[in-house]
Amino acid sequence: MISLAQMGGFFVGGRRIHVAGQPTRPVYSAPAAAKGADHDPNGSFLVEAAYVQFFLPAAPRFTTPLLLVHGGGLTGAQWDSTPDGRPGWLPRFLEAGVGCYVIDNVERGRAGFCAIEGEWPDEPLPLSDEEAAERFRFGYEGQTFPLAALDGLSAQTVPRWRSTRALQADGVVHAIDRIGPCALLGFSQGGGFALAAADRRRDKVRACLTAEPHLLPERFEPGLAGTPAAMVLGDFIEEDQVWREVAAAGVASMAAWEAAGGVAEVIRLPERGVSGNTHMMMMDTNSDEVFAVILDWFDDQHRRGRLP
Amino acid sequence: MISLAQMGGFFVGGRRIHVAGQPTRPVYSAPAAAKGADHDPNGSFLVEAAYVQFFLPAAPRFTTPLLLVHGGGLTGAQWDSTPDGRPGWLPRFLEAGVGCYVIDNVERGRAGFCAIEGEWPDEPLPLSDEEAAERFRFGYEGQTFPLAALDGLSAQTVPRWRSTRALQADGVVHAIDRIGPCALLGFSQGGGFALAAADRRRDKVRACLTAEPHLLPERFEPGLAGTPAAMVLGDFIEEDQVWREVAAAGVASMAAWEAAGGVAEVIRLPERGVSGNTHMMMMDTNSDEVFAVILDWFDDQHRRGRLP
Repeated sequence: MISLAQMGGFFVGGRRIHVAGQPTRPVYSAPAAAKGADHDPNGSFLVEAAYVQFFLPAAPRFTTPLLLVHGGGLTGAQWDSTPDGRPGWLPRFLEAGVGCYVIDNVERGRAGFCAIEGEWPDEPLPLSDEEAAERFRFGYEGQTFPLAALDGLSAQTVPRWRSTRALQADGVVHAIDRIGPCALLGFSQGGGFALAAADRRRDKVRACLTAEPHLLPERFEPGLAGTPAAMVLGDFIEEDQVWREVAAAGVASMAAWEAAGGVAEVIRLPERGVSGNTHMMMMDTNSDEVFAVILDWFDDQHRRGRLP
Repeated sequence: MISLAQMGGFFVGGRRIHVAGQPTRPVYSAPAAAKGADHDPNGSFLVEAAYVQFFLPAAPRFTTPLLLVHGGGLTGAQWDSTPDGRPGWLPRFLEAGVGCYVIDNVERGRAGFCAIEGEWPDEPLPLSDEEAAERFRFGYEGQTFPLAALDGLSAQTVPRWRSTRALQADGVVHAIDRIGPCALLGFSQGGGFALAAADRRRDKVRACLTAEPHLLPERFEPGLAGTPAAMVLGDFIEEDQVWREVAAAGVASMAAWEAAGGVAEVIRLPERGVSGNTHMMMMDTNSDEVFAVILDWFDDQHRRGRLP
């Protein structure tokens, strides 16, 4: 059961582009398509905004809401449901009364991408099932990703540009500036953006949890004033060379966070008795167990007075 | 206040593509970007699926839920909130206890687009503010679109392909097949898809309301068995040549719906005392008044026993 005072969405950031002096061009037309007027590429466009959908509980567990930041090649849809149709972490948070803001960062999902010629230097890259299986650690015995429902993951991966990293880092900051005081949960690529944004907006971010983050900042200026951060790691990390390196970089980043005055924690799920988790831990068959560990971490910050 | 038994999302439809024999290629890299491995374009991809987010009330007003179908160049975000931050029709339906499924059709928003070379024949087209203002009737005196918040609309328009019409028509049908018995609300381009889907899935679609639909079917086979359809038109239709033609085609389609055994209604908002509405009536400052007319239509179908 989910009781909301309000739900809705908004857009943040973005850049105005004015195109002028370009010739109109005929548009694609096929027998089945309606004939259309020529396309006029000139005019004013707002590009590079990020989309944020929000769900505010009637009886909030914390005054501080949570901003969920998706991973690379993914959108906010990753939090809705699991590929095999179980509730995702978004409905679980809402059932628990945690207010949630869900970003579709610049370029992804409902944020849309920039189709104006000459603006972005590179081509969008799709993710194959084979690359996903390798990168997400689906090959290990005892792994808990619901492989029979792989289509549900394949369908939700979206093409990504590699040139938009700085825009996406800013997208999270723009969202925080609009939301006000909040906590962050960032996954994979979104984990890197989340911790960097927590650093850039120390006055607003009360807590930051990252799930198997990529590219966490390596150092932080002193003065973090006890802001809690945590990094959650799944299973098979030590078996996988790439993940060993990613995890080691994450551990170093957490140490740097503490050195700058923050409070940091590395949560290895197998050490908490939660095993088999792939990178896509919010979709794994034991996603509710992982969720319980994460909710417990936010509850703990709340009990300690760090997260109002 | 919104009380939900459940919320989540899923993907429907889609096509498997297998790419083989292509060389890997270097990926874009800039000082600010992380160096990445070469991109391997080979492998298995699921493209052309549609995304559906759902919200199921704890105490449903109707047993039959509603499927909301966005317009061209837009995504399901159009139903969340208005550009000036008031509640959109999605939260209004949920407050009223109407179960809602919200599609991001093939190519749009969280559904993602196909970035595999050679699959789609055309280029994505962005929509300029100038084209939007003309097409959406923002120039008429007394119009109620919140022009001071135009950025909120500009940010949410996304590039569109013209080659994907048939895929999007199928996307709505795939969503209906997954949902089961339902009612439809389709806007603009989505209105055409909605009524066509209501025709193709006569066993499942209980009612179909379209708001300023484009390209409604021109004829229907007999046997509609009293299924109700309605078309809602805003203000300034008679003042605008394009819209006069679109409205006339819609009126003809509604007549054809009746001739095939359906029940059809044309609702001109000014005749109901709701004036000033542009094409973007779910975002206009009087969007709640338009919503009341629409909810009343569904309530009326329910009272008459057409919509369980």
